[in-house]
Amino acid sequence: MEKIFIAGAGMVRFGKYDANVTFERLAVGAALGAMKDAGATRGQIDAVYVGHVFGGPVAGQRVATELGLAGLPVSNHENYCASGATALREAWMAIRAGVHDVILVIGVEKMTDRVKGGVTPEPSDLDAMQGFVMTAGHALSARRYIIDHGATREQIAMVAVKNHMHSQHNPYAQYQRPVSLDEVLQARPVADPLGVLDCSPISDGAAAAIVCSAAGLKRLGITSSRPEVRGIALVSGTLRSGLYDLNEEDVSRRAGEQVYAMTGIDPGDVDFVEMHDCFTIAEIVRMEGLGLIPCGAGAAWTESGETSLGGKLPVNPSGGLLSRGHPVGATGMAQICEMYWQLNGQAGGRQVQGARLGLSYCKGGTVSGTDGASVTTVVMSR
Amino acid sequence: MEKIFIAGAGMVRFGKYDANVTFERLAVGAALGAMKDAGATRGQIDAVYVGHVFGGPVAGQRVATELGLAGLPVSNHENYCASGATALREAWMAIRAGVHDVILVIGVEKMTDRVKGGVTPEPSDLDAMQGFVMTAGHALSARRYIIDHGATREQIAMVAVKNHMHSQHNPYAQYQRPVSLDEVLQARPVADPLGVLDCSPISDGAAAAIVCSAAGLKRLGITSSRPEVRGIALVSGTLRSGLYDLNEEDVSRRAGEQVYAMTGIDPGDVDFVEMHDCFTIAEIVRMEGLGLIPCGAGAAWTESGETSLGGKLPVNPSGGLLSRGHPVGATGMAQICEMYWQLNGQAGGRQVQGARLGLSYCKGGTVSGTDGASVTTVVMSR
Repeated sequence: MEKIFIAGAGMVRFGKYDANVTFERLAVGAALGAMKDAGATRGQIDAVYVGHVFGGPVAGQRVATELGLAGLPVSNHENYCASGATALREAWMAIRAGVHDVILVIGVEKMTDRVKGGVTPEPSDLDAMQGFVMTAGHALSARRYIIDHGATREQIAMVAVKNHMHSQHNPYAQYQRPVSLDEVLQARPVADPLGVLDCSPISDGAAAAIVCSAAGLKRLGITSSRPEVRGIALVSGTLRSGLYDLNEEDVSRRAGEQVYAMTGIDPGDVDFVEMHDCFTIAEIVRMEGLGLIPCGAGAAWTESGETSLGGKLPVNPSGGLLSRGHPVGATGMAQICEMYWQLNGQAGGRQVQGARLGLSYCKGGTVSGTDGASVTTVVMSR
Repeated sequence: MEKIFIAGAGMVRFGKYDANVTFERLAVGAALGAMKDAGATRGQIDAVYVGHVFGGPVAGQRVATELGLAGLPVSNHENYCASGATALREAWMAIRAGVHDVILVIGVEKMTDRVKGGVTPEPSDLDAMQGFVMTAGHALSARRYIIDHGATREQIAMVAVKNHMHSQHNPYAQYQRPVSLDEVLQARPVADPLGVLDCSPISDGAAAAIVCSAAGLKRLGITSSRPEVRGIALVSGTLRSGLYDLNEEDVSRRAGEQVYAMTGIDPGDVDFVEMHDCFTIAEIVRMEGLGLIPCGAGAAWTESGETSLGGKLPVNPSGGLLSRGHPVGATGMAQICEMYWQLNGQAGGRQVQGARLGLSYCKGGTVSGTDGASVTTVVMSR
């Protein structure tokens, strides 16, 4: 089977941008960064895959046109917060299929143009209609976790403290200053027990990578080794409020099992994780769902520093969604950029020492899954 | 290289549906039709690929949930009017990549819920800002064609007469009655010289197919032959008003050349075409762009019946977008269904006699291509 590599990565800093910094401009910035990093010229690229949610019709073609790549096959992929990772998955299969050798994959979102306040649920989301919106769902998840596992509110808040500590060293992060446990606990309440620092922000941003076959690396003149994309799983959700335990994390378990089977790795082989921490509690329950932390132990691992840089299994060295920011369609590709830099030993002050194998996870759709959660897991190694 | 087959096809009739016939219900109707036709049970399907434009985030997952297919990999693909064909292309590569063997591909749109009047251009469409909207563009294209090639307004109108004649025999068509040349010429003017019968309508609908590897056919217990998807090309547009001749059809030429090269066929091998006739004139110039009709001869071919059923090269035996209807994300898959039925000899009163090789074409994005036209070509054979 054809091996797939990441030849280069690029991001624009996540944050809130003016109206004149367009969706296209964000995407172009990230794409040019990835092309420069890979040493790829326009003529060497076969196709452009774009993941986004709110960019509107043929947004990827607008980006390709601004990049000077009009003419190429361009496709747009949407799977809510897993859109960027889904675009990567389709590109990965296009290369394995022998159709393309060098693909520019971009995840991008200009949320401040499209979303006022929080992300509103689709009218078809039956749970949201009854008030079970995303923040409420994760608040219930936190409460349930505390009851079931004897965890504390403070332990959950420590996820935010950790991820803000990590992203001090990430020049692409929306937030680059530490927050104290007290700040998290005293922050404006959102849905009890969660406050605003337990929630990922509204963000604009883009992240991109050049994805290649071995022949593609050769075309780019790359002779040194590059991180390999070992496997990507995609599953959808069966989780529904009232039908399942909120923290059962069936989709996470299946997405984990599939990517382990696909790559032949064991959860114990993972050196670090880029995790979809849209809320503090989500990082904990999803790590457990993946079998990377024993069920019920995630809060204690957070408190004892096992998931911090220098710990047993660093989670979100980038700062994660909570602190790097969460431009929904861009997040999956930002995780790929971070894994690329970590595996190349280029992550500076947030470097995971000896990182040889990383796993990233995205979850798109409402917490309840009525709208059909889409979960991706990606394994990369050097 | 892995061969890819269509094991079954299904559609719901295109038309305008009440609000209570949801996007999801349309998609489920088409999907169940395709599953029944292929004899596929839920447990035999590996993944669900959905093409749509206006369905909102994770629309495919909502459909999969209603189908009882929650849990599978589900992905959403957008390339404006080429969205259905783009979903098929990604599914085709996923099978070639050896990742899946049986994929349910759905194209679906509920336009009446989302679009009032015509489709409004994106704010980034610089041509549209100056009034160069889709209808205006195709009107200019028609006028230019008449001047350049000595064609007549009547010849262009005959595309609509032909396609309405064909779809009398298509139970899935939005319109199933013939229209006379006079009716087309006397219809409410839209953009001179085009009237409302020169324009494809606003439509709701869905079309689906079960796409398989040889192993997938075996899994479904299919031992008889099935139409093969020989190749799918995707290109994006460089066409811009002011930079190119409006009828240069550079994207069509490239999409044609790529699919001919990919499949090893010659334009002369094509027995019938499912063409993106969003406007009457578009059928003519795109057929010429593909090299299927000599440049400037398309209007005369239409008048002499060469593109009618029984002619040298029947175009749009289904009725095309003009008469089958045009629910944008569904159109590409409706073309696949039509090719499947034609190649199986199941097209009833609209059967192309001896059909062995069909070509379908979709174009998404504005006429001017400022928003980045996406063009797909699919070749299928039996």
